[in-house]
Amino acid sequence: MLFQSSHASRGLTVYETSRGGCVGRLQASFRCLIFPFRSFQCDIFLCLVGQSSFSLRSHTCGELCSSHVDEEVTLCGWIQYLRQDLFVILRDFSGLVQILIPQDEVAAQLKNAFLGLTVESVIMVKGRVRCRPEGQENKKMSTGEIEVCAESMEVLNTCRKLPFEIKEFVKKSEALRMQYRYLDLRSPRMQYNLRLRSQMVMKMREYLCNLHRFVDVETPTLFKRTPGGAKEFVVPSGDPGKFYSLPQSPQQFKQLLMVAGIDRYFQLARCYRDEGSKPDRQPEFTQVDIEISFVDQAGVMSLIEGLVHYSWPEDKGQINVPFPSMTYEEAIRDYGVDKPDTRFGMKLVDVTTAFQESQIEFIKDALLKPSGCIQAICVPEGTVRTESGDSHSYVPTPQLNLQRSQCSLISKQINLFKQLFLMAQANAGDLIFITAGPRENVVCRPLLGKLRLQCVELLESYGVPVRDPSVFHFLWVVDFPLFLPKEDNPEMLEAAHHPFTAPVPEDAHLLYTQPRKVRGQHYDLVLNGCEVGGGSIRIHNASQQLYVLDTILKEDPSLLSHLLEALDSGAPPHGGIALGLDRLVSIIVGAPSIRDIIAFPKSFRGHDLMSRAPDFVSEEDLKPYHISVVWPSADIEGQQDNSV
Amino acid sequence: MLFQSSHASRGLTVYETSRGGCVGRLQASFRCLIFPFRSFQCDIFLCLVGQSSFSLRSHTCGELCSSHVDEEVTLCGWIQYLRQDLFVILRDFSGLVQILIPQDEVAAQLKNAFLGLTVESVIMVKGRVRCRPEGQENKKMSTGEIEVCAESMEVLNTCRKLPFEIKEFVKKSEALRMQYRYLDLRSPRMQYNLRLRSQMVMKMREYLCNLHRFVDVETPTLFKRTPGGAKEFVVPSGDPGKFYSLPQSPQQFKQLLMVAGIDRYFQLARCYRDEGSKPDRQPEFTQVDIEISFVDQAGVMSLIEGLVHYSWPEDKGQINVPFPSMTYEEAIRDYGVDKPDTRFGMKLVDVTTAFQESQIEFIKDALLKPSGCIQAICVPEGTVRTESGDSHSYVPTPQLNLQRSQCSLISKQINLFKQLFLMAQANAGDLIFITAGPRENVVCRPLLGKLRLQCVELLESYGVPVRDPSVFHFLWVVDFPLFLPKEDNPEMLEAAHHPFTAPVPEDAHLLYTQPRKVRGQHYDLVLNGCEVGGGSIRIHNASQQLYVLDTILKEDPSLLSHLLEALDSGAPPHGGIALGLDRLVSIIVGAPSIRDIIAFPKSFRGHDLMSRAPDFVSEEDLKPYHISVVWPSADIEGQQDNSV
Repeated sequence: MLFQSSHASRGLTVYETSRGGCVGRLQASFRCLIFPFRSFQCDIFLCLVGQSSFSLRSHTCGELCSSHVDEEVTLCGWIQYLRQDLFVILRDFSGLVQILIPQDEVAAQLKNAFLGLTVESVIMVKGRVRCRPEGQENKKMSTGEIEVCAESMEVLNTCRKLPFEIKEFVKKSEALRMQYRYLDLRSPRMQYNLRLRSQMVMKMREYLCNLHRFVDVETPTLFKRTPGGAKEFVVPSGDPGKFYSLPQSPQQFKQLLMVAGIDRYFQLARCYRDEGSKPDRQPEFTQVDIEISFVDQAGVMSLIEGLVHYSWPEDKGQINVPFPSMTYEEAIRDYGVDKPDTRFGMKLVDVTTAFQESQIEFIKDALLKPSGCIQAICVPEGTVRTESGDSHSYVPTPQLNLQRSQCSLISKQINLFKQLFLMAQANAGDLIFITAGPRENVVCRPLLGKLRLQCVELLESYGVPVRDPSVFHFLWVVDFPLFLPKEDNPEMLEAAHHPFTAPVPEDAHLLYTQPRKVRGQHYDLVLNGCEVGGGSIRIHNASQQLYVLDTILKEDPSLLSHLLEALDSGAPPHGGIALGLDRLVSIIVGAPSIRDIIAFPKSFRGHDLMSRAPDFVSEEDLKPYHISVVWPSADIEGQQDNSV
Repeated sequence: MLFQSSHASRGLTVYETSRGGCVGRLQASFRCLIFPFRSFQCDIFLCLVGQSSFSLRSHTCGELCSSHVDEEVTLCGWIQYLRQDLFVILRDFSGLVQILIPQDEVAAQLKNAFLGLTVESVIMVKGRVRCRPEGQENKKMSTGEIEVCAESMEVLNTCRKLPFEIKEFVKKSEALRMQYRYLDLRSPRMQYNLRLRSQMVMKMREYLCNLHRFVDVETPTLFKRTPGGAKEFVVPSGDPGKFYSLPQSPQQFKQLLMVAGIDRYFQLARCYRDEGSKPDRQPEFTQVDIEISFVDQAGVMSLIEGLVHYSWPEDKGQINVPFPSMTYEEAIRDYGVDKPDTRFGMKLVDVTTAFQESQIEFIKDALLKPSGCIQAICVPEGTVRTESGDSHSYVPTPQLNLQRSQCSLISKQINLFKQLFLMAQANAGDLIFITAGPRENVVCRPLLGKLRLQCVELLESYGVPVRDPSVFHFLWVVDFPLFLPKEDNPEMLEAAHHPFTAPVPEDAHLLYTQPRKVRGQHYDLVLNGCEVGGGSIRIHNASQQLYVLDTILKEDPSLLSHLLEALDSGAPPHGGIALGLDRLVSIIVGAPSIRDIIAFPKSFRGHDLMSRAPDFVSEEDLKPYHISVVWPSADIEGQQDNSV
């Protein structure tokens, strides 16, 4: 019933069982684990681990190399291509290997079977590994030193239909890729992306769960609509008129878990946000959700630096911890944005003094107003890098729809601006943009912040290297204001992040007198100019939380009565963070869209182009949920629109 | 800025930073990890790991023991109780510790602060560990050899409100526990359950991801309604009349991932099922979802045995692999059910021959019909174990609403049944139940199967030990029929599990001639009589899949056109399984309900009693989804019903 495997030659005796199939075969590159296993007739078994355990194959295609020469191997995979009736290139997730089709008369049947294969069909090949004849090695192929002489072959499945070729160089439209996602995922790039994501997540779990004793707790996704949660999907229940909602984050639950004494919680949490057709957003996304008790801001930041460092993919180089920190004020002052891309300079410079005597109309106007200022950025060699020498080539003014009163191109021939050039550290050929306006307003600096990014993108699109694509700049942004004026009613305040963020201790007393001046214990993690995480120390005092909700934000506190009650029943000090996993991984692998690191993403209109979700549901099927469809009065042709 | 910590005495130099708080302190019981950390002024740091890293505390309450004597410790936790103005018992997730309140005059202020504390308030205590005076040790307490002499104390939060005491012995109603779930979770039992679940899941991930190179892939939960998916929640989209659905499992996606060449997939998948008020079900639940290519049934079964073995909690004893297997036919024959509880005997016995000459009316009738048979179970000592001696005490007939024609109590005074007693191996005092009917019908054996379980529950409720609660009996049930007659129309067939299950190879040809005789390559994992997992080898051939859907099941194949297309574009042979994590963990911890291993479960009516979800949503908020509520015509008083 049991037999000793051929792998015994490697110094390990490996047993396989007769229960219909193979239990696992030795992968020399993996550790072994001993425990009683399928022990019908013997007590101790070697259970083998690795990428070919429990499988019909003995090896993967991509792992074969000259050390396997003379070994009998069994491979399973897809036909990448047939070459001159002599070779088959076989592919699995691990790579490609060349299979030699036997040419001698006695193997005519086997040869014919190979020649009848279609591309992307699935086969199992048994054969022996040998060195390729001298001069025929392929240095570009990781298995290019060897080939496998086929001794038998079984067709496991025939590929009949292919809407496009599974080759990297064949360009597919995004819509076609999405419709046939199962083919798109066969590409080495998508295989790499999904595997890297899985490995990173596993390392994160090891760090949190094994090293730092966090508890992985699943929280409900069928929850209650949060007040003003306009972006939350609703789920009709069997109770007439009552709906669950799919939460945007487990914020309330993670805080309640701290009140429950869980001490340290994490979860790879599925979150939902209905944002219609915002570019590169997904209706469902994943965040690394973390909360910890008896901690301060520095503690959470250290925890996250350790987490990112521990889970960082080896092939992406070293990252240094701790990450630098910048206050919100510094970020706006120097970069015009709260998530600065620090991979390049071109910082904002306050050049107000250079313009004190200026007679230029829009500048004079601006400086007359309270806290009026002039800001500038300098684009190095911004006017000399185009072939035509036309200084306008780089100016992205049209894209921004700038008004001349807000922004103006200052070219070097104007002598008046000598002082400006000095302050902006400009050299001949550089391009300077200036804006004028009140220091606090949301245009003056943010506008230059956007221009700064557009300039660098434009430069790079012209082939001017500015940012090193292999470099990762992490940055903490801290000391955010706790409240911001409401956009539609600046007399009222709204929470800058969410109403549970605790004030910076030094500012706590200002809560009751000058709430606009209070900074929050909030921290954003920024990577290469993208926000990849955000968190805070939370309010753990019920009366402070009530004051913020009721008196400052004018929200109905009864909607959060369970949270307020919880804070009053022995809530520990606590704080946490959520990392946007999709965004983080997409930046690490250099993907242009988060769709490239999600197995089955939705189109930007929220459609699954493969299965055609969402789809119509009959009125009959809606009855148990006490809802019916309100058809728009216009004709309903538009529904059939299936654009990406 | 940096200082050497007091832990240096342990032989390790530990640096802490000045960045507002502690980075982490040494936990002697955990491994250390070295990497550059918060290196403002030095390059190499020791980053400490364990349950108190990044925390205000130096130790947890429960870890203190005599080896900590004379150490300065900082503890954070909840006041469990105050004792005679002398002690405070402090609690955190790890356990309890006794804090000694200083009694000398100079510490009067500290003493008063302690005496002002309310139960469940949160404090931070600094103090020195000492041995308890001789004779005052508490053997029942894991920290009972020591106490901590308080030197300073800070109240972190005051507990003002408590709807019930956080003591195990205080019985709470289920509804109260659910409403104040954050307090209920403070109990040692719930802490144990959630932590065990987290650790088991982590071990499963290590086994799958690290040992066997599975790829953790997240699949969408906003999907398309499956044909006939009556139990799927719908989620209205922004497209009029179109809905997503929350899938019952990622079945289609896992198969598509195999077509995509992912090779081995797993996911802790959130699944949804709208089952109204079925007892001990949850509208959302978690399954360990696994799929693997180039595998056979034995391979998947071995994989799962390894998984359960690897992740099995240490404190639950050893489990043996491989698990025994039983065919569906054997299970029904011997236990009257397809998920037998094999922890005890009382198997079904075919006693037809004993009754060949019987003149008892209902038996005669049954044996006249084709394949009529008589089945029996024997309850050992079933008539003698009651105090009253009344043999009827154990008979659960009323609960089952049995008709006398189906089931009859045979008492020992009837001499005619000597042969029956022999066949059933009955002794004096045993109780025998028999049923009569056609061998294949769904009453004869299943009824005895139910009776068998009811008997053992009744016996156990009387204090008769039958099953050892510390024993775990895993069992595979295999060789299920692939199709079953539809309940409402026995001429038609439906899939016994799902339409993607492949036939047993020996039976494959019967698909086209006698589909009712085909066995499926399906396997159920049963633990102590509960189904904890089920899986199958899938059909990977498009034409076979089309035949099953179209010809046998009479379903519209166009609804699964994307899957059929995928199978035709090079699908590898593949199979998988899904384990019901909630059920598995609840059996392991011996919880009476799956609600006891879920942090925030719904009531059996699907309500969250803490936040009051689901809740009303305004018609205004429903407008973007083009739906409106259809109020039942009856009065709507009933809506406010919030029963559990």
